[in-house]
Amino acid sequence: MTYCVGMLLDTGLVFLSDSRTSAGVDQIGTFRKTTVFEQPGERVLVLQTSGNLAVSQSVMSILRERLQSGGESPNLMNVHSMFDAARCVGDALREVHRHDAEALRSFAVEFNTALVLGGQIAGETPRLFSIYAAGNFIEATPDNTYFQIGESKYGKPIIDRVIRRSSSLNQAAKCALISMDSTIRSNLSVGLPLDLVMIRRDQLRVARHVTIGDDNAYFSGIRATWSEALRHAFAQLPEPDWLTAGA
Amino acid sequence: MTYCVGMLLDTGLVFLSDSRTSAGVDQIGTFRKTTVFEQPGERVLVLQTSGNLAVSQSVMSILRERLQSGGESPNLMNVHSMFDAARCVGDALREVHRHDAEALRSFAVEFNTALVLGGQIAGETPRLFSIYAAGNFIEATPDNTYFQIGESKYGKPIIDRVIRRSSSLNQAAKCALISMDSTIRSNLSVGLPLDLVMIRRDQLRVARHVTIGDDNAYFSGIRATWSEALRHAFAQLPEPDWLTAGA
Repeated sequence: MTYCVGMLLDTGLVFLSDSRTSAGVDQIGTFRKTTVFEQPGERVLVLQTSGNLAVSQSVMSILRERLQSGGESPNLMNVHSMFDAARCVGDALREVHRHDAEALRSFAVEFNTALVLGGQIAGETPRLFSIYAAGNFIEATPDNTYFQIGESKYGKPIIDRVIRRSSSLNQAAKCALISMDSTIRSNLSVGLPLDLVMIRRDQLRVARHVTIGDDNAYFSGIRATWSEALRHAFAQLPEPDWLTAGA
Repeated sequence: MTYCVGMLLDTGLVFLSDSRTSAGVDQIGTFRKTTVFEQPGERVLVLQTSGNLAVSQSVMSILRERLQSGGESPNLMNVHSMFDAARCVGDALREVHRHDAEALRSFAVEFNTALVLGGQIAGETPRLFSIYAAGNFIEATPDNTYFQIGESKYGKPIIDRVIRRSSSLNQAAKCALISMDSTIRSNLSVGLPLDLVMIRRDQLRVARHVTIGDDNAYFSGIRATWSEALRHAFAQLPEPDWLTAGA
């Protein structure tokens, strides 16, 4: 399983992903799910992947091959808009589907994958996309602050409660880590290390790319503090008087 | 969709369920998902249902018919243990499966249902079961404090963080309501009114059965206070200094 979240704020973008891959409980691996495509000062794109690892790795291989082949055909480093970049990813996904879907079907393996693509290309504002297995996609509008892929439910409530477009990048990173903490606690197939990428609007480069393992003091600190703060806040809530009142 | 949670504490049992049923977004209904079987002083059982409404209603009808027919055959009011009560429910489920599963399959409708059964029968301690669509079931052991059915993920992290077997019934009820709040905010197909049932150990009767609607001052109060407390606790967490530090 996987948990990835990408957030679009007024001041930039934040991406967080885990790195655990499981094909059964006796086959657990570490695979990074975040890839950065960057030409500093001109464009910066971040792609997060979830679902069938063979599918998402094939998509990444195709995207990289198209970069290396150069030429006129569209690739992530020569397209003029994030919309066209999302189409590149969708096209690569459809190529994998044409090549593999029937074989997967004959083994009753689902062609399941989902991607988040975000970033900024010179001349545009930062944009964020959620790309489906069929290669189609949706874009975050002013009403949407984030997209999640993978094991999204455990970590969703806290994002909904605290993050707005006006939140700072550091607030968004903090919230993404709290959201990841709730997910890791609930689903064994989501695990460290984490990849955190932060992009400041109009810098057109990665502002910060941090790999967070067990030894990350900040993450360990806020996990413990958050647990304690939740328990404290819960204890402070008034208790119902139903049992003492009428029963 | 549905969200139900049943909790087994040292001092008794707490059950909370929503009441929204949806067969498409244009077909939303209110159906209670909690049923109490009680003979005060002798036994008290609570059954929560989720999944296909036609299946769970058929199960309830069969269980009620067996009560009314009386006689020697096992029913929820004459079995001598909660284990046998769970078997009664499983048997009713299998009867529905025999009658309906093939017809459902021909319409590609899944025979999906899940139930939580808890309570106490004189001579036993309180017990809690999670019953699957196949009619088999598991029981909470000292390591398990709760079972959820339906849309369980949004509301799971808070229960894991704050509830132990030693929690009071009022704490458990408060936590169940907070867990429900997170679920209602994230999934439109989970909705009010709620059914909250509390059972004190060895009382062998319902201590409290509250129906909680929009107008319930306690629930409205803790929803607002909890949101505010979470935002406050989040704001108090230290922010990462990654962006200011090195980027």
